[in-house]
Amino acid sequence: LQKLGKADETRDAAFEEMVANFNKQMTEGTKLQKDLKAYLTAVKTMHDASRRLQDCLAEMYEPDWFGKEEMDAMAEDTDTLWLDYHQNVTDKSLVTIDTYLAQLPDIKARIAKRDRKMVDFDSARHHFASLQKGKKKDEAKIAKPAALLEMAAPSWAQGLISAHQVAQTNLSYNQAEEELGRAQRIFEELNVELQDELPALWDRRVGVYVNTFQSLAGHQEKFHKEMSKLSQNLNDIMTKLEEQRQLNEEAN
Amino acid sequence: LQKLGKADETRDAAFEEMVANFNKQMTEGTKLQKDLKAYLTAVKTMHDASRRLQDCLAEMYEPDWFGKEEMDAMAEDTDTLWLDYHQNVTDKSLVTIDTYLAQLPDIKARIAKRDRKMVDFDSARHHFASLQKGKKKDEAKIAKPAALLEMAAPSWAQGLISAHQVAQTNLSYNQAEEELGRAQRIFEELNVELQDELPALWDRRVGVYVNTFQSLAGHQEKFHKEMSKLSQNLNDIMTKLEEQRQLNEEAN
Repeated sequence: LQKLGKADETRDAAFEEMVANFNKQMTEGTKLQKDLKAYLTAVKTMHDASRRLQDCLAEMYEPDWFGKEEMDAMAEDTDTLWLDYHQNVTDKSLVTIDTYLAQLPDIKARIAKRDRKMVDFDSARHHFASLQKGKKKDEAKIAKPAALLEMAAPSWAQGLISAHQVAQTNLSYNQAEEELGRAQRIFEELNVELQDELPALWDRRVGVYVNTFQSLAGHQEKFHKEMSKLSQNLNDIMTKLEEQRQLNEEAN
Repeated sequence: LQKLGKADETRDAAFEEMVANFNKQMTEGTKLQKDLKAYLTAVKTMHDASRRLQDCLAEMYEPDWFGKEEMDAMAEDTDTLWLDYHQNVTDKSLVTIDTYLAQLPDIKARIAKRDRKMVDFDSARHHFASLQKGKKKDEAKIAKPAALLEMAAPSWAQGLISAHQVAQTNLSYNQAEEELGRAQRIFEELNVELQDELPALWDRRVGVYVNTFQSLAGHQEKFHKEMSKLSQNLNDIMTKLEEQRQLNEEAN
């Protein structure tokens, strides 16, 4: 038993590290989800502010100024670009994180169940160990001269008491052994499953982070590239409007 | 006077249009300033959210993962890009609007002063006009037989009263004429200045809008172009990290 205890302790230290990793990846994932949601809210905020600024220009823009129609078309394109960007990051990056996080509470519950079943297993083991000790004593007693209690009993009962005692002890002992076997099976099953799954899940986080940020970076790249083009268009329209203004000034 | 009134009315209608334009450009400019400030706040919000997301990735990033150093360097570049963009839009576009708007309250005050001086001028004109009417009556009286009042006066005073009356009327008349001249000069000076300045100021708004949005578009174009490049870098790092992860998986 002493030896088994040591092996258990070693195994538990390894398992505890797995659980620490699991908790780390759960904390990381939850923070990533929160930060990504805040980022998406900020995208909406900047989209709204940028649209309001563009609307402001559109409202001030006189119909006879250069590029009135291009201005309006550009405002719509910019709007679409922002909306698509928000939608793409939501559909890809956020969904990746959401799906990944959704499986963690079940694992967490199974870790807690394993802990409870380990307590059951431990108490069954201790119960069995103490019965085992008692049984050994009884066996020793039968080999020894009659105890004081037995000496006080009527002579016809001599031997019956100890036989009954042995039978009783044997029954409890067998029940406890069975109980120990069952507790061990339940614990081991959960334990083996988790020992398989936790390291795989820990490794899987890398893929999740890659998917999330690769998808984000991809949409970001496209979004910023298109935004840069639209800004170039706005710059060109402003240059032409300035030329028109200077020509008008010279004409007056 | 009827004729002068008509000319005044025409002149006032033209001036009122100038004032309507001035009010329009003041409203437009104030809204533009407000929307630009809100945009700058939104830029800060999105910068913060984007930095927090990048920090989140950096914290999860294990030291032995591909491109840890590039990741950290890229986070700093992104930060600088956001800060520069915010600073540039503040320094150029917002300052352009602020400078433009700063001159408007003085013009607004001068329009209000012109309105008050026009009231003064009008009342001086009416006062003078009524004295002019009275003077004509007095002159007509002198030419007519003595009035009832004069007939009631002692004979030695006959003629003196009307002489005194004429002298008095002449004094008021001259004072009113002077007052009218002064009120007109003050009004005309303000009026001429504003009639010069208001149309020029109205035209100048176009240049202000051009400067504001051209500068914004220029910085925006540069910002988005650089952001697109950095997103491409992040995408590349993620691709390499995924390759590393797959190699590790095969090795285990």
